[in-house]
Amino acid sequence: MTDGIIKPQTLRGFRDYLPEAMLPRERLMETARQVYRSFGYSPIDTPALEYSEILLGKGGAESDKQLFRFTDQGGRDVAMRFDLTVPLARFTAQHLTELGTPFKRYHIAPVWRAERPQRGRFREFYQCDFDTIGTTSNAADVETALVIHELFRALGFERFSIRVNHRALLNGYLEKLGLADNATAVLRCLDKLHKIGTEAVIEEMTREKIATAGQAQSILDLASIQGDNDSVLAALDALIAGSESGEHGAGCLRELFGLAKALGIDAGRLRLDPSIARGLDYYTGTVYETLLDDLPGIGSVCSGGRYDNLAGLYTKQPLPGVGASLGLDRLLDAMGELGMHTKRTAPAPVLVVFFLADRLGDYLGLAQRLRAGGIGAELYPEPKPIGRQLKYADRRGFRVAVIAGDDEFARGVWQVKDLATAESIEVSDEAVVARAGAIAER
Amino acid sequence: MTDGIIKPQTLRGFRDYLPEAMLPRERLMETARQVYRSFGYSPIDTPALEYSEILLGKGGAESDKQLFRFTDQGGRDVAMRFDLTVPLARFTAQHLTELGTPFKRYHIAPVWRAERPQRGRFREFYQCDFDTIGTTSNAADVETALVIHELFRALGFERFSIRVNHRALLNGYLEKLGLADNATAVLRCLDKLHKIGTEAVIEEMTREKIATAGQAQSILDLASIQGDNDSVLAALDALIAGSESGEHGAGCLRELFGLAKALGIDAGRLRLDPSIARGLDYYTGTVYETLLDDLPGIGSVCSGGRYDNLAGLYTKQPLPGVGASLGLDRLLDAMGELGMHTKRTAPAPVLVVFFLADRLGDYLGLAQRLRAGGIGAELYPEPKPIGRQLKYADRRGFRVAVIAGDDEFARGVWQVKDLATAESIEVSDEAVVARAGAIAER
Repeated sequence: MTDGIIKPQTLRGFRDYLPEAMLPRERLMETARQVYRSFGYSPIDTPALEYSEILLGKGGAESDKQLFRFTDQGGRDVAMRFDLTVPLARFTAQHLTELGTPFKRYHIAPVWRAERPQRGRFREFYQCDFDTIGTTSNAADVETALVIHELFRALGFERFSIRVNHRALLNGYLEKLGLADNATAVLRCLDKLHKIGTEAVIEEMTREKIATAGQAQSILDLASIQGDNDSVLAALDALIAGSESGEHGAGCLRELFGLAKALGIDAGRLRLDPSIARGLDYYTGTVYETLLDDLPGIGSVCSGGRYDNLAGLYTKQPLPGVGASLGLDRLLDAMGELGMHTKRTAPAPVLVVFFLADRLGDYLGLAQRLRAGGIGAELYPEPKPIGRQLKYADRRGFRVAVIAGDDEFARGVWQVKDLATAESIEVSDEAVVARAGAIAER
Repeated sequence: MTDGIIKPQTLRGFRDYLPEAMLPRERLMETARQVYRSFGYSPIDTPALEYSEILLGKGGAESDKQLFRFTDQGGRDVAMRFDLTVPLARFTAQHLTELGTPFKRYHIAPVWRAERPQRGRFREFYQCDFDTIGTTSNAADVETALVIHELFRALGFERFSIRVNHRALLNGYLEKLGLADNATAVLRCLDKLHKIGTEAVIEEMTREKIATAGQAQSILDLASIQGDNDSVLAALDALIAGSESGEHGAGCLRELFGLAKALGIDAGRLRLDPSIARGLDYYTGTVYETLLDDLPGIGSVCSGGRYDNLAGLYTKQPLPGVGASLGLDRLLDAMGELGMHTKRTAPAPVLVVFFLADRLGDYLGLAQRLRAGGIGAELYPEPKPIGRQLKYADRRGFRVAVIAGDDEFARGVWQVKDLATAESIEVSDEAVVARAGAIAER
């Protein structure tokens, strides 16, 4: 405090969203909602706070340490959710009778982790998950890939690839290598391949006695198979021949890629990638990652997979499912870097300049007519000098300014100024809505 | 714990949102966003957690007691926000240079209060606020009323009334009664009028020595003035004549109602109501409440007002503003009670029945064509008996089911079933999207 003033500041690792960050964020979330809904996923929400026993031990010791956990006024041991998967498990177990299965839900909400703040890592961030629960059918796995594809298309991406693999295929291969008992450790290590490289993976596997050098090399032989989906499948068939698990995984993938091809999905955008493992232990079937061709270095922006049992800690009823999570913040950063955010930052494209104090009704009337025509319009709230209002329009990113003074009112016309080109034209009162709208939509 | 199972439960005063509650909630928030944006308000967001010193003492002792407050891993004294106004004040002070003024923002986000849980009161709920900051111009007050009006129209309400009053008018009258020094206490008591009635207000004012019986009666004389806006204004003019403050308030209201009339706003939906005081101390100008004509008992569903200084605790720069807050939960309950929620609860209107396992590609293809035509379509994920899938469709609230078996595939047709009427018609593969879409939109 200085002079009785409290310093206005956010907590370390937390951040405010100003309009220019929040507008594309809201657009992205709205697109995700529309795509999810169009496939029949329903929205749900759960509390930010849960009993600690619901959240503890679900993400490992690291995750427990990162919990914002405290005792509430009623003496309850409570904590803020650190992801949306554990709350989904609790939610589904609690409301199973009401929900029924199959149950398809999406959930877009903030989560909290007391991580060491660093570039691109925050203590509060949004997750954006969708899942199909209560079915083991591969049709749901196929659909999950289609949802991711549609999502990126709807967001305006052309150059991306959804990388798909199957845990049963990997496990079958590990069985054949005599590594069945080490599968979890192997896959967790393989998951680092794209971050740390081949040498480091082999080094770690042998150092940690997860696999022999020969076994590690065999794993990387499989992971490095590349080519079009059909030829990768053929190569995999040869490697996993005779393994029941491996053949099951290959069969699921063959169906998925066959159907995607029949549906006209670009094969470059949906690729069989035997190197994809996903680190999380609970995946048991199909696994997904999504890379942006123009920014591969940022890693996967949409990942997920199939699991055998979502909520075993809360209910005895087995709940298999499949789903994925969109990396909202990473994707927004990427879209910014790729210049995909529109320059327009004003929420409404038209500024109605407030020039003559006694004409407020006319300005308000025009703004109302514009909005009735589906064109967002803001009235500057004070009759200030026109230059100041145009400076405001420029700073806020408006597309159009509409102006009238005594002369214009006398003649029943408006000046419509295109703020991108700075050109003004004079139009009649009858034509002003259509003309401002045409410029706004350019 | 029993059998190693953790009981799936939410904390007292917290709740899950199932799809049938969440779908109308998302629709309402989306409508609010669209209306706010169309008037030029920008979205912002702030962290759920703030330094406790930012939040403490801002809502009085009661509000401090209700804070979810704790010490974080870094030893910081932190708390979860209890409203969106204090974070807005902190936010605006912190980013003032970047934001500039006038600054119009909306903020739709959850807040937390450890209140005693009771019917309709929860410890986590959403607020949905919009404000214009940095101007004393009455044009912003007029616009605030127009936003509320447009919001309720866009939500589908016909019968509602926005009640407007002005603190300067009330203060002017209180001055004339010799109550200038007690204005805060008087208005806080008057704010209870619609809850506790005339007698109780007079009783409280005299008991608490806020006003004499005669003064209290005079206050209620003013508050009980009714009629069309022009006649109420005329009656008020007489009562506040000679008071500078009173005449300023009356002038602002006269401009507001005159402009609203010129803009064609139904006078029944925007009414001058001298009984509206709002309890909060920081209002200094126009005040707003919104009543639903068919459910007046639930109280105001959208309230707000003008204030002289938003962020005096965090910056020396005075920041006047005006805004209001939509009572999201109360309004959703009201819409449910008034039967305004659509019966349709499925996020996508069409269920594509999965009948023949080897025809998955055809079913996926149809679902894809429907979505490409703008019609949400869900594929049942397993080839289960048709009766079970139709039961699912019914429970989830789908509008249309599309079905094909061997016979239909042989003849290139689909059965399109209207789930509201249970009628089925057979249409060609070319016509199925248009037909299913027509029923879905009914």
